[in-house]
Amino acid sequence: MVPHPYSALATLLALAVFFWTTALVSRARTRYGVAAPACTGNADFERVFRVQMNTLEQLVLMLPALWLCAVWVGELYAGLGGLVWSIGRVLYAVTYIKNPKSRTAGYTLTITPTLVMALADAVFILKFMLG
Amino acid sequence: MVPHPYSALATLLALAVFFWTTALVSRARTRYGVAAPACTGNADFERVFRVQMNTLEQLVLMLPALWLCAVWVGELYAGLGGLVWSIGRVLYAVTYIKNPKSRTAGYTLTITPTLVMALADAVFILKFMLG
Amino acid sequence: MVPHPYSALATLLALAVFFWTTALVSRARTRYGVAAPACTGNADFERVFRVQMNTLEQLVLMLPALWLCAVWVGELYAGLGGLVWSIGRVLYAVTYIKNPKSRTAGYTLTITPTLVMALADAVFILKFMLG
Repeated sequence: MVPHPYSALATLLALAVFFWTTALVSRARTRYGVAAPACTGNADFERVFRVQMNTLEQLVLMLPALWLCAVWVGELYAGLGGLVWSIGRVLYAVTYIKNPKSRTAGYTLTITPTLVMALADAVFILKFMLG
Repeated sequence: MVPHPYSALATLLALAVFFWTTALVSRARTRYGVAAPACTGNADFERVFRVQMNTLEQLVLMLPALWLCAVWVGELYAGLGGLVWSIGRVLYAVTYIKNPKSRTAGYTLTITPTLVMALADAVFILKFMLG
Repeated sequence: MVPHPYSALATLLALAVFFWTTALVSRARTRYGVAAPACTGNADFERVFRVQMNTLEQLVLMLPALWLCAVWVGELYAGLGGLVWSIGRVLYAVTYIKNPKSRTAGYTLTITPTLVMALADAVFILKFMLG
C-alpha cells in the first residue's frame, strides 16, 4: 500500500486538538465546581463544554473526508486540509471560550477545508465511476 | 489498492446527512432564540439538537462497520448499507422533530444496516482467521 | 492489501461496547422516566447518559489511533490496544454509573492505550519521513 504520512500526521494533530478540548473540560469542571455528571448550570463551564462537543462533531465530519481525499484526490491536499482544520479549531476554541459570538472565524476555518475535501472527493469518485 | 467507489460515495452521503442535521441546529438556534452555549430550555430546540446528537452517535457506529464491510465482505454491500442508513436517518430526523415518539421507524432503518454490516464483518473476519 | 484481522475484531468489539452504552441509555430513559428529548433532570439518568457521551468521545479518539497503529506500527499491537480500551470502557461504565468519583481507573485504562498508540504512530511516521 502507498503510505500516507501527511494524512496520518494531520490525523494525529486533529486528535491532539480534540484531546486538548477534553482536557479543557476537565480543568473547567474543577475551576467552576461542576462535578460530573452535570454539564449545565455554570455559563463559563458550558462554553468550554460546547467547544469540546462541537469539536467532536467537526472531527467526525472531517476525518472521513480527509481519508477519502488521501486515497482519491491526493495525499498532500489531505494533509494540508487537516492542518488548516486544526488551526481553525484552536482559533475556534480560544475565541468561543472568551465570547460565543466571536466564534465565526474559527468555525469558518474549520468547516471550509472539510467541505472542500468532501467536494473534491465527490468529483474524483464520480469521474472514476463515469469513465 | 482496489478502489471502493460505492463505499466512498455512501460515506460522503452519510456525512452530508449529518452536516444537514448540524445546519438544522443552527437554524433552530435562531428560530427559537436559544443562543450558544445553551442547549436546553426550549423543547422545540431540544428535539432538533437531539436529532443531531443521535445522528452523530449513529454515524460513529456505522462508518467503521461500513468500511470493514467494504474490505472484508463486499464493496457493493457496504455502499448499499450506507445508502439505507442515510435514508433511515433523514426519516428519523423528519419524524423526531415533529414528535419524538414517532422516531422508531427511522431509528430501525438506521440501526439495522449497521448491525447487519457489523455482523457480516465479524463472520467474514472469523472465517478468515479460522481457515 | 494485507488484511488486519485483529485490528478489525478490536474495532467491532469497541463498537459493541459503545452500542451497549447506547442501550443502557434507552433502558435508563424507561426506568427513570426521562422521555426524549430531555437529557437532564434525573441524576441517575444523567450518569448513564454521560457514560455514553464519554464513550463516544473516547471512541472517536481511539479508532483513528488504532488504524494508524495497524498500518504503521503493527497489526497485533493495534488489536491489543483496542482490546485494553474495550475492557477499560466496560470498567468505566460500571463504576461511573455507581459513583462518578470512582471512574478514574476505567478512564485511565481507556486513555492509556489510545495515547500509547498515538505516540507510537507519530514516532513511526516521523521515522519514515525523516529517512
